[in-house]
Amino acid sequence: MKAELLYEGKAKKVYRAETASNQLVLSYKNDATAFNGKKKESFKGKGRLNNEISARIFPYLQQNRIPSHFIERLNETEQLVYETEIIPLEVVVRNVATGSIVKRLGFQEKVAFRAPLIELFLKNDDLDDPLINDDHALLLTDLSYAELNEIKAKALEINTALLELFESIDLDLIDFKLEFGRLVDGTIVLSDEISPDTCRLWDRQSGEKMDKDVFRQGTGDLLKVYEEILQRLEARS
Amino acid sequence: MKAELLYEGKAKKVYRAETASNQLVLSYKNDATAFNGKKKESFKGKGRLNNEISARIFPYLQQNRIPSHFIERLNETEQLVYETEIIPLEVVVRNVATGSIVKRLGFQEKVAFRAPLIELFLKNDDLDDPLINDDHALLLTDLSYAELNEIKAKALEINTALLELFESIDLDLIDFKLEFGRLVDGTIVLSDEISPDTCRLWDRQSGEKMDKDVFRQGTGDLLKVYEEILQRLEARS
Repeated sequence: MKAELLYEGKAKKVYRAETASNQLVLSYKNDATAFNGKKKESFKGKGRLNNEISARIFPYLQQNRIPSHFIERLNETEQLVYETEIIPLEVVVRNVATGSIVKRLGFQEKVAFRAPLIELFLKNDDLDDPLINDDHALLLTDLSYAELNEIKAKALEINTALLELFESIDLDLIDFKLEFGRLVDGTIVLSDEISPDTCRLWDRQSGEKMDKDVFRQGTGDLLKVYEEILQRLEARS
Repeated sequence: MKAELLYEGKAKKVYRAETASNQLVLSYKNDATAFNGKKKESFKGKGRLNNEISARIFPYLQQNRIPSHFIERLNETEQLVYETEIIPLEVVVRNVATGSIVKRLGFQEKVAFRAPLIELFLKNDDLDDPLINDDHALLLTDLSYAELNEIKAKALEINTALLELFESIDLDLIDFKLEFGRLVDGTIVLSDEISPDTCRLWDRQSGEKMDKDVFRQGTGDLLKVYEEILQRLEARS
């Protein structure tokens, strides 16, 4: 199914698909990294869990009219996606203040924002993925003004859809990170992954953290938590 | 002319004016600070120079339909202004990449931006005046969406007017910082100061830096440079 390795990132390998020239195989790795790669550990089975979770979330979003690069789950750790030219932005949507924004801007921990807050970060490891504003984004990417606004509007739509999905499995969606890419025809679609690596999810009953923060903060069993999320998603469908 | 001291900042003291309850006296100090106060030095005569320079720039901007808090120069180091409620933003306009943005986002030193770039920083010493985006600004200030856009549009108008002013005295306006405040009636006007402390100015012939960077970088005589700017402004009128 897969031919040459095109790229190896922190959490995934990307191969060209043998089937079609505009398709890629994403192979989810077992590595967990945090703090821009400064903390790193491998968890046997994590790749499978993130692949399975992502492969449930992208189709759910597609049903909610959110196009993405996702085509299909191939096997336990791999999924087939359309090739996109990556837009070098991390688009973060925050519903509740926690993590970096609390220290950075003095927001009070665990307090909900009046409205979902969007932040753009430049994908650039050397610069430590800095926060940028819209003006910067227009200078540092090939996005037009209209496309940037389209991405931000899409991020809010995705937030609405994901809030509903996670609420249905008793999780609060606190914040999450999205990436977008450009298909060969120029269309911009959601890409990368959506998983507990990229979302903060808090159990609605216990308030317990059910995401990569258990690894970042060393407060729990990452595999157990990710398995629980997959099980809740499976039970839902 | 002045009654009680209301506030002492890094570069100015603010007194209530005796003449009217909604007026303040700004007294320019001789202190120069940089790197959020980490570098500090006093220059005898600096207060006078910044007062004189500011007291020429605000009227110029008023003639160009940019309302501000400025009423009149009172004496060598003081000016009378309308009291405003400070909006806790530093509004930075950049025409050419230099300073923090080069390190932070990897722009190439001395390269002009396609269009003037606006950055917002939260005025908060404890947080080191962090860069924020528009969403943050709406959460962290009492500005409405329309008012924030009005401030950004005003910043660009001020840029156009100042580019022309400084070009006429053979200086390139590289970037500058503005602050805005709200008059008692709610109107938002330009406030604070406009001086070589808050503008980067490069001599159009020699390329020499003619602003606070000579102090930040320890490369020249701050008083001589500020005096030169005042003389050029005086010669112009």
